[in-house]
Amino acid sequence: MRYEEFTIEGRNAVIEAFRSGKTIDKLFVLDGSEDGSIRTILREAKKQDVIVNFVKKDRLDQMSSTKKHQGVIAYAAAYEYAQVEDIMENARSKDEAPFIIILDNIEDPHNLGAIIRTANLAGAHGVIIPKRRAVGLTATVARTSAGALNFTPVAKVTNIAKTIEELKKEGLWFVCADMGGTSMYQLDLKGPIGLVIGNEGEGVSRLVKEKCDFVASIPMHGDIDSLNASVAAGVLAFEIVRQRMS
Amino acid sequence: MRYEEFTIEGRNAVIEAFRSGKTIDKLFVLDGSEDGSIRTILREAKKQDVIVNFVKKDRLDQMSSTKKHQGVIAYAAAYEYAQVEDIMENARSKDEAPFIIILDNIEDPHNLGAIIRTANLAGAHGVIIPKRRAVGLTATVARTSAGALNFTPVAKVTNIAKTIEELKKEGLWFVCADMGGTSMYQLDLKGPIGLVIGNEGEGVSRLVKEKCDFVASIPMHGDIDSLNASVAAGVLAFEIVRQRMS
Repeated sequence: MRYEEFTIEGRNAVIEAFRSGKTIDKLFVLDGSEDGSIRTILREAKKQDVIVNFVKKDRLDQMSSTKKHQGVIAYAAAYEYAQVEDIMENARSKDEAPFIIILDNIEDPHNLGAIIRTANLAGAHGVIIPKRRAVGLTATVARTSAGALNFTPVAKVTNIAKTIEELKKEGLWFVCADMGGTSMYQLDLKGPIGLVIGNEGEGVSRLVKEKCDFVASIPMHGDIDSLNASVAAGVLAFEIVRQRMS
Repeated sequence: MRYEEFTIEGRNAVIEAFRSGKTIDKLFVLDGSEDGSIRTILREAKKQDVIVNFVKKDRLDQMSSTKKHQGVIAYAAAYEYAQVEDIMENARSKDEAPFIIILDNIEDPHNLGAIIRTANLAGAHGVIIPKRRAVGLTATVARTSAGALNFTPVAKVTNIAKTIEELKKEGLWFVCADMGGTSMYQLDLKGPIGLVIGNEGEGVSRLVKEKCDFVASIPMHGDIDSLNASVAAGVLAFEIVRQRMS
């Protein structure tokens, strides 16, 4: 497992955990408590879509190891981010040409989870996400990944464009998904490859797009603009699989 | 547009609309009202994930056409379901071999919306869903379809297996997505086709699977069990597109 669970007890500790961006998987609150700090905790929980369980004092006492829970116990998950180097090592250890999925600001946790799930099943060696302005490895992402988070390394980088530059030196080609590019069926996607998927609304950002070697398009036959981001990632990832198998 | 919006005013009328399964897009409630029937309405709204706006009396009076709003006005959308015959006619009018996506009990509205979006962009002529035990065309589905619901007909049938039987008489072949089938790259998916996608947890039901001519599998290269249902539908739909283009 790539994550370990740990327990946080007491009002300030739990508020602190929320504010520092920790992933709270489950929250247990004393039934009937209503004062200010509990309300703050419930507000944070709502904001972060955390499941709240209202329980009796006995239950909390039983769960508590410090015996100072103050009516609040949280289960937090520390998902361990990988390094880009771990992803490259994953490819080397399997003796395969690297296949990395790079996400340029995916915001919806369901999309991120579904893409990690796809990355695992398409045999990608890892996923790279940016540190800022994108969703991280929240509990919803972990759940939607259907367990893939335990197998497929996810690295978080400060600057996607710079990471692409560095990986190019290691022999990777980069293809970004966007409209108006070359049909994916006409591109050679067999070698060491980085597949770049853009933000749900805005697509791949200009700076990142400029670093890519190719723009790949999924041939569209309909009336609307674009596929859901995780569906587009799936269609492109499996085109890479098809070409690698043939 | 395949749907029209209409306004429902008054407590009983709104409760009735919720209970009869109408899709409420927006709900306006008099700020500060708290009695029993309002609480019932708010409970139904929460259950169905409807956005509630608490507004002042002036605003409601202005919106009301009956002047008997009793503190509640709802905007409902009547999505118009198509008939299976409309889907076949859609194919005929474009002079294309029919391509239909059949959903055997998709439960998640985000998946249904994403699949209707995919159906539109893959050039499928329509989507068929079952009447029972599956999600229908809710406001969330409409939103997630990103407008595709206005272009791609969706038909609701009582018995998926029976509908498959009938469409076979019109020359369609049916391929269901499941593990342990033939690799989708080895199947001929070019002719008149129905692509059957199963439930998120349980896959395609036995009765429906027995009616299918082929079982198609997406080649998996990972550690976990299966792709997200809307991603799997996307990968298979675009394999059909690839074969039809070649």
